[in-house]
Amino acid sequence: MSEPKSQNIQWHGANLTHEAREEAVGQCGCVLWFTGFSGSGKSTVARRVEELLLLGGVFAYVLDGDNLRMGLNKDLGFSPADRTENIRRVGCVAQLFADAGAVCLTAFISPYRADRDQARAMLPEGRFLEVFVATSLEACEGRDPKGLYKKARDGKIPEFTGISAPYEEPEAAEIVLQTEGRSVDECAHEVIAHLRTRGLIK
Amino acid sequence: MSEPKSQNIQWHGANLTHEAREEAVGQCGCVLWFTGFSGSGKSTVARRVEELLLLGGVFAYVLDGDNLRMGLNKDLGFSPADRTENIRRVGCVAQLFADAGAVCLTAFISPYRADRDQARAMLPEGRFLEVFVATSLEACEGRDPKGLYKKARDGKIPEFTGISAPYEEPEAAEIVLQTEGRSVDECAHEVIAHLRTRGLIK
Repeated sequence: MSEPKSQNIQWHGANLTHEAREEAVGQCGCVLWFTGFSGSGKSTVARRVEELLLLGGVFAYVLDGDNLRMGLNKDLGFSPADRTENIRRVGCVAQLFADAGAVCLTAFISPYRADRDQARAMLPEGRFLEVFVATSLEACEGRDPKGLYKKARDGKIPEFTGISAPYEEPEAAEIVLQTEGRSVDECAHEVIAHLRTRGLIK
Repeated sequence: MSEPKSQNIQWHGANLTHEAREEAVGQCGCVLWFTGFSGSGKSTVARRVEELLLLGGVFAYVLDGDNLRMGLNKDLGFSPADRTENIRRVGCVAQLFADAGAVCLTAFISPYRADRDQARAMLPEGRFLEVFVATSLEACEGRDPKGLYKKARDGKIPEFTGISAPYEEPEAAEIVLQTEGRSVDECAHEVIAHLRTRGLIK
C-alpha cells in the first residue's frame, strides 16, 4: 500500500467562506418566491426577470413546474401530501441555488402558507423574498390561458386552487405585484428594483 | 373585471435560448460527477476545484452529502432503494444547475453504474464528465478519516461500499483521477485542465 495521503486530503481542502463566495460571484444568493393563482403571471414575470438579470450579468435561474415536474418531482402527483412534498423539494433546491450565490426564482402556486414559510425558514434573514402575484381570481379565470379554469368549473380537475381548493394569501410578502393593466416588463422591473434597493444585486 | 392582460403576459415572456444564456453567463453548464470509495477524496478534490473555479470567475457549486442529506434528501436512508432515489435526486438537481449554466460538481460514492448512467442521460452529450476518483480500497481504508471502515469491518455499519456492498467501477469515465501520492491541488488542477481542454470554461 502506498503512503496514504490522508493528511493532504484533509488539510488542503480549505474552502471559501460563504462571504468569500459571494464576493467572488459578485452578487448575493437569494430566493424570489413567486406565489399566486394559476394564470396570475408568476412564471411569465419570473422568466422575464431572469432574462433581464442574465443580460445584466447576474447569475439567475427559474425553478417552475416545467423543469421540476419532468425530473426531480416526477414521482409526485397533486394530492395534498404530494403538493407539500413538491414545494418542500422546490424550497430545498432553491436554498441550494441561493447557497451557490444565484438569484433563484421559483414560480409555483404554492397555496399553503405553511409550505411557503417552511421554504422561507431555510434561507438566512433577508434572502427570501415572497413575491405575491396579486392577480385576482376573476382576472386569472378571464385569462385562462390553458383552459384549466373551465375544466375546473366543469368538475374535470379536482382540487383546483381558487375553485375547489384554498389559496392562502401571503400576509407579509416582501413584494406585492399588481399585474392587471400592466405589462410584463413593468412588473419585472419592479422586482429588479427591489433586488437593487435591498443590495442583493449591483 | 378589468381588461385582462393575458396577451401581455403571454407575449412578452420571450426567454433566452440556452445558447444565449450560456453566452450571457460566459461558461458552459456541465456536471462533474465524482465517484469512488468513501475516503477516496471525492469531496475534498471537488471542493478545491470549486474554490479555484470561483476565484477564477467561474460559477461553480458542489453537491455532496453535507448539503443534500440535511435538506432535500433528509427523508432518505441507506437502503438500496433509498440510495438509488438519493442519487436520482442528486442527478436531477445537478441537471438543473447545469441547465442554469453552472459547473456543478457532485461528490457521492454512487456505487451503481446504472444510477450514474441515469444521471448522465439527463445531460446533453459532452456536458456530463464522470470523474472516477481511483483511490484504492486499501488506501481509503488506510486513511479512514471518519473511522467508518473500522466500524464496517466490525460489522457495525451494514452494506458499506467496498466492505459489504459492491462498488461498480466506471468503465469509461472521462477523468480517472489518481490521488495516491499526489496533493489535492495537483488533482484539482488536473480536473480544471480537462474543463479547459473541452472548452467548457475559458
